[in-house]
Amino acid sequence: MTLPFTIESQTGPARLARISTAHGPVETPSFMPVGTAGTVKAVPQGILEDLGAQIILGNTYHLYLRPGHELVRNLGGLHKFMSWDRALLTDSGGFQVFSLSELRKVKEEGVSFRSHLDGTSHLFTPERSMEIQIALGADIVMAFDECTEHPAERERARASMEMTLRWAKRSKDYFEAHKHEVPWNSVPALSAENAEGMGHPTAYPTAPALFGIIQGGMYPDLRRESAERTVELDFPGYAIGGLSVGESRAMYPDLRRESAERTVELDFPGYAIGGLSVGESRAKTMEMIAVVLEILPKDKPRYVMGVGYPEEIVQYAAMGVDMMDCVLPTRAARHGLLFTSEGRINIKNARYAQDQGPADPKCACRVCARYTRAYLRHLFVSAEPLAGVLNTVHNLAYYLDTMRSVRHAITLGDLSGMLSGSVSLT
Amino acid sequence: MTLPFTIESQTGPARLARISTAHGPVETPSFMPVGTAGTVKAVPQGILEDLGAQIILGNTYHLYLRPGHELVRNLGGLHKFMSWDRALLTDSGGFQVFSLSELRKVKEEGVSFRSHLDGTSHLFTPERSMEIQIALGADIVMAFDECTEHPAERERARASMEMTLRWAKRSKDYFEAHKHEVPWNSVPALSAENAEGMGHPTAYPTAPALFGIIQGGMYPDLRRESAERTVELDFPGYAIGGLSVGESRAMYPDLRRESAERTVELDFPGYAIGGLSVGESRAKTMEMIAVVLEILPKDKPRYVMGVGYPEEIVQYAAMGVDMMDCVLPTRAARHGLLFTSEGRINIKNARYAQDQGPADPKCACRVCARYTRAYLRHLFVSAEPLAGVLNTVHNLAYYLDTMRSVRHAITLGDLSGMLSGSVSLT
Repeated sequence: MTLPFTIESQTGPARLARISTAHGPVETPSFMPVGTAGTVKAVPQGILEDLGAQIILGNTYHLYLRPGHELVRNLGGLHKFMSWDRALLTDSGGFQVFSLSELRKVKEEGVSFRSHLDGTSHLFTPERSMEIQIALGADIVMAFDECTEHPAERERARASMEMTLRWAKRSKDYFEAHKHEVPWNSVPALSAENAEGMGHPTAYPTAPALFGIIQGGMYPDLRRESAERTVELDFPGYAIGGLSVGESRAMYPDLRRESAERTVELDFPGYAIGGLSVGESRAKTMEMIAVVLEILPKDKPRYVMGVGYPEEIVQYAAMGVDMMDCVLPTRAARHGLLFTSEGRINIKNARYAQDQGPADPKCACRVCARYTRAYLRHLFVSAEPLAGVLNTVHNLAYYLDTMRSVRHAITLGDLSGMLSGSVSLT
Repeated sequence: MTLPFTIESQTGPARLARISTAHGPVETPSFMPVGTAGTVKAVPQGILEDLGAQIILGNTYHLYLRPGHELVRNLGGLHKFMSWDRALLTDSGGFQVFSLSELRKVKEEGVSFRSHLDGTSHLFTPERSMEIQIALGADIVMAFDECTEHPAERERARASMEMTLRWAKRSKDYFEAHKHEVPWNSVPALSAENAEGMGHPTAYPTAPALFGIIQGGMYPDLRRESAERTVELDFPGYAIGGLSVGESRAMYPDLRRESAERTVELDFPGYAIGGLSVGESRAKTMEMIAVVLEILPKDKPRYVMGVGYPEEIVQYAAMGVDMMDCVLPTRAARHGLLFTSEGRINIKNARYAQDQGPADPKCACRVCARYTRAYLRHLFVSAEPLAGVLNTVHNLAYYLDTMRSVRHAITLGDLSGMLSGSVSLT
């Protein structure tokens, strides 16, 4: 069984489903916390479990550079290395090397780039990406794609899409020949607890699954064509890529400031400001997702990469998206931005100095149960490491609870409450 | 009842005892984690509770500057502010302003100093220190002392000791007149769980207790005189101060490097290297403690401030010391230094890159139960925030477990195993 995907309930296009991995079940729609370097930044694994995270992401680019995929494989794979026995998904490294901008060069063979850590030269090809992801031992592996920049001229978007399709084929060929080399394949990976949560304890996969990625820029016909031709290659799941590019940071001055600061840290010879046509961009994103969802098979998981704000992920889930991931809740937390049922708050604001309420009065997470906004503000303005821990735990709780509410609403057959409560997207 | 102190068992001069505070019991000998700014750096309060910490420290200097003692009082005191309902001890601020070196000036009235945060001018007097500590609402408050530098000429050490005695009297006078103003006095502070742990649920204090501090430099006769005259002032507990000055960092090149880096960060016009006569210094420290313990009343808690290494705190407990505190386990953790039953290890060392064992094979803490040295090394060399969290949790577990073993050994009537297992001190 490649990747059992059981739809349990549907409301309109939205679906409540269950993905069965060798490392336990993933209930969808699911938001996947990002654990770039084998750690969801600042959060101990036990707390992630308590929060109910069933799957987290690892980044191929980062783990390849440090500590190195060979080392991780030698130590039994990423699950064992980071002591996480639930599901793991790794990206292909395509988006990260794309983000390196001036440091990378794209050819038919693959992408050559220089490490942001030490400037050494490296080459990622579809085959190499598969080899690394198999060594890491993810449950879900992503095809190596070219993440098309935005904006892109039509011909550029088409060429990029064609490249991604050729790379998808090469990814699949290599993956199918080597997928049983994951470090966990030789041992019984599924714990009793996970098997129980699976519903069908015997029907779990013994190898990882490879997802194809749809590109095509902001051109509906290219997206449609990319979807059709990727589906022809026949993957057990599909992702929609290239939608988080230069977009989601656009609406928020503080995130834009952060984006600038962090980009400058990477030290480029020049800088560009992207994604400024915002309202248009968010609407375009939804349009691209809608176009692609029409074509993707309904019996397989559909994953939108790198999104988004809480109101966005609710909207996309309502449209029939099953999986999403984003650095937003974790990265924003480290900058003092908290997502709450009353909107986003910047905890360093002086107005919270004597605020004895929790971060979010409607949140039941361990942070909101115990600590006040006044204390969280004090930790943040004092640059205390506990600030990052507590803020991240709350933001992840907010995202995971949001998805839990979405799943509950699907069971009840009514998502309107969730959607009306969200901020308008246009 | 000022501060009930019940000795339950004795082995030689070592005592197993219980301090009953309004916020629960403290079993002694006790090591107290340092929570400088209302947080034990990088550790959520719930984990401190799980580790069995019954008392932690707050720093008057830091909390006075940020968020300010008035704010903390308005929010119900430090216990409530940081959500910690077990015992709290605050230092007087004397040691911190002493550490400011070029930024402070000592007069009979008190110490004027400039904030390391913004350069603003402030004055700490014995009365002011009491006012701040009462506003913070600690269970145990420390007299305002002058921490004598080391080395110090005899006449300088005597003058400093005399000043500390005059300040002790002023501290006590102000404290006795105002101690019932602590923010928790008006409400029942003791939770059911804490009352139960107390043994004698009704016999807990309704106001904090003030400890006197013994100074006298490295001169046995001055230490003796300081102890005798401080005891004449009659405190419910006594501390020995001035022993962590320029000493404990001396033996370890990595800590000395850190000391240099962190001192340079404070940006002084010049720098001195202290504490180089190390073997001598550690022996002197023990001699000072021994001299003072002879004089201090045996029916009251005795606290050595700012120590030390694991082998030191075992030794001092064996000599009859009841309480100790030190930034060492927490600060060293953030620099990748782990205390283990096999000695101290520097986790960033390449030899741990593929080490699948726990930080300490004999440790039962949550970090050693779950994570490998290879993973801890990866987190540290990647500057991941989780490194500080996990390293600190382990080091605190090691210190708290060490004290637990000492208490157990006292019950069994034999401390020799603990002492022979420790590193030689001369």
